[in-house]
Amino acid sequence: LEPIVDSIGSRVVIAVLDAHWRRYLELLCALEIDAVGSAEPDELVNRHSRQTQVLLGSPDLIAVAARRLPALRWVQSSWAGVEPLIALGPIPGVTVTRAVDVFGTQMREYVFGHLLGHAVRLVDRTDSSSWDPQTPEMLAGSRLGIMGTGSIGRTLAATARHFGISVVGLSRSGQAAPPFDRVFPTRAAIDFAAGLDHLVAVLPATAHTRHLVSSQLLARLTRGATFINVGRGSTVDLTALLSALASGRVSHAVLDVLDQEPIEENDPLWRVNNLVITSHTAAWSRPEDIVTLFADNLARWHQGTELRGTVDFGLGY
Amino acid sequence: LEPIVDSIGSRVVIAVLDAHWRRYLELLCALEIDAVGSAEPDELVNRHSRQTQVLLGSPDLIAVAARRLPALRWVQSSWAGVEPLIALGPIPGVTVTRAVDVFGTQMREYVFGHLLGHAVRLVDRTDSSSWDPQTPEMLAGSRLGIMGTGSIGRTLAATARHFGISVVGLSRSGQAAPPFDRVFPTRAAIDFAAGLDHLVAVLPATAHTRHLVSSQLLARLTRGATFINVGRGSTVDLTALLSALASGRVSHAVLDVLDQEPIEENDPLWRVNNLVITSHTAAWSRPEDIVTLFADNLARWHQGTELRGTVDFGLGY
Repeated sequence: LEPIVDSIGSRVVIAVLDAHWRRYLELLCALEIDAVGSAEPDELVNRHSRQTQVLLGSPDLIAVAARRLPALRWVQSSWAGVEPLIALGPIPGVTVTRAVDVFGTQMREYVFGHLLGHAVRLVDRTDSSSWDPQTPEMLAGSRLGIMGTGSIGRTLAATARHFGISVVGLSRSGQAAPPFDRVFPTRAAIDFAAGLDHLVAVLPATAHTRHLVSSQLLARLTRGATFINVGRGSTVDLTALLSALASGRVSHAVLDVLDQEPIEENDPLWRVNNLVITSHTAAWSRPEDIVTLFADNLARWHQGTELRGTVDFGLGY
Repeated sequence: LEPIVDSIGSRVVIAVLDAHWRRYLELLCALEIDAVGSAEPDELVNRHSRQTQVLLGSPDLIAVAARRLPALRWVQSSWAGVEPLIALGPIPGVTVTRAVDVFGTQMREYVFGHLLGHAVRLVDRTDSSSWDPQTPEMLAGSRLGIMGTGSIGRTLAATARHFGISVVGLSRSGQAAPPFDRVFPTRAAIDFAAGLDHLVAVLPATAHTRHLVSSQLLARLTRGATFINVGRGSTVDLTALLSALASGRVSHAVLDVLDQEPIEENDPLWRVNNLVITSHTAAWSRPEDIVTLFADNLARWHQGTELRGTVDFGLGY
């Protein structure tokens, strides 16, 4: 494979390191972007270590190879969360970007599928064989809190407003972010939680987000609130959540992410009442979406402008 | 109770005939609208037959009393469907209005609760005790057809577009109605159905809508389509739907309305695979909503302008 030449005449070799690398190469080829690919870090290092300047793929594989690619200048993660690269630490001269602006559509369907599906008692009615005139609980007029006001959080907030749900956000800075009615800073997380009917977490795993969903925070929710975690498992003090589910403080929880994934079939979590566990499937990195982001970032790279989703190793995401 | 006097000096007595009449009187009182009320047609007729000029309530009860109220000039139904009044036939000098513009919020939650809840496999995941990396089916990019382009249909169409679903409508006239991408006339129902991934019916029960959801129409849907009926049971040829569910043409159906309601616990419908039955609960006539509509129509009545939701006995709704 021939290296491509960028706008200032230097050769840039793009490599894909991902389980879906063949699909990525197809999609890149359609955009006339030449690249090499592999699903094996060692294979990539052995074949392309000297030329690889740009690396696209899943951060768990990239973390294995990154320090053995001397020409590497930019890593585009196909995941939103880049914990394996954070754990590896910054590599001098290498920019890391994470997947941003590509998961909102999937997350919106997941979160509102669970919220609305629960409100219309989808599970009860599927199992039922009797007429029951009880009308569904309505989400319109209820209060939703979203932990995380990045692109996914803002997409969820827009959908909440479409359904007539009022929505507040929680972020590191507490900076106003439309369409949130109000954004609280992380240090005011307990105030943020007061009187919420629904709580959704979409936070990255960092030292600052660890166990932010604590017993104190859960105690401030409306009694019988619902909780959904589509961020990272470490945000939740699981013992506190299980206790809130047992007491009825939280009536229903949905966890797409756990501290340890996957869990075994005999894990007691499967048997907790009113807890639904999905298998880190709320949003997956569809190669079509990731390649669109990558192509945009590649254009920015050639132009020397700021890349979307640049990781700040100090903040940890 | 004293009769109220309208803008041209004539006395108007408002009566409520509804199971929830006490709640209606409270809400009307808060708007300074005097009214009398009952849940019994005979009682209303015995006590107030000579004064009742305006009657608000459920059409099944009103149909029993209406022809025995000589002063009656206007009936505001608290239901969207007014079949009992259509069956009674028009009464000279009496205008009938049905509940309009009040069910969109509830219907939106019901329809998308079922569509999204099914897409995210809410029932499967609730019952599951194993990790399963299968990602949810996405609604974004799919095609939805809505039979009925009135206020409920348009509300559903707006929500579909919010989720990135393309949406076509079916109506008597086929007249364009934003936010539908396209509206087909009833006579082109088979063309309307071609290639739809999801079909939602929100039609009234009339001679023209009877069995519009036929085997020919269902055969045009995308294989594995979903079907939801929140209009009236008579729209659906139930034998055709059961056959489409058995063949897989329709993979999942949700019926909130049936020809005969309620059905008994031993009804075989409860045991049909991939068929969810709810108990005519998708949207109920919340007195708060109905009173808001009634107060607006009452102002129009006093002003002599056109009422919202005026029933056309020729069309049957």
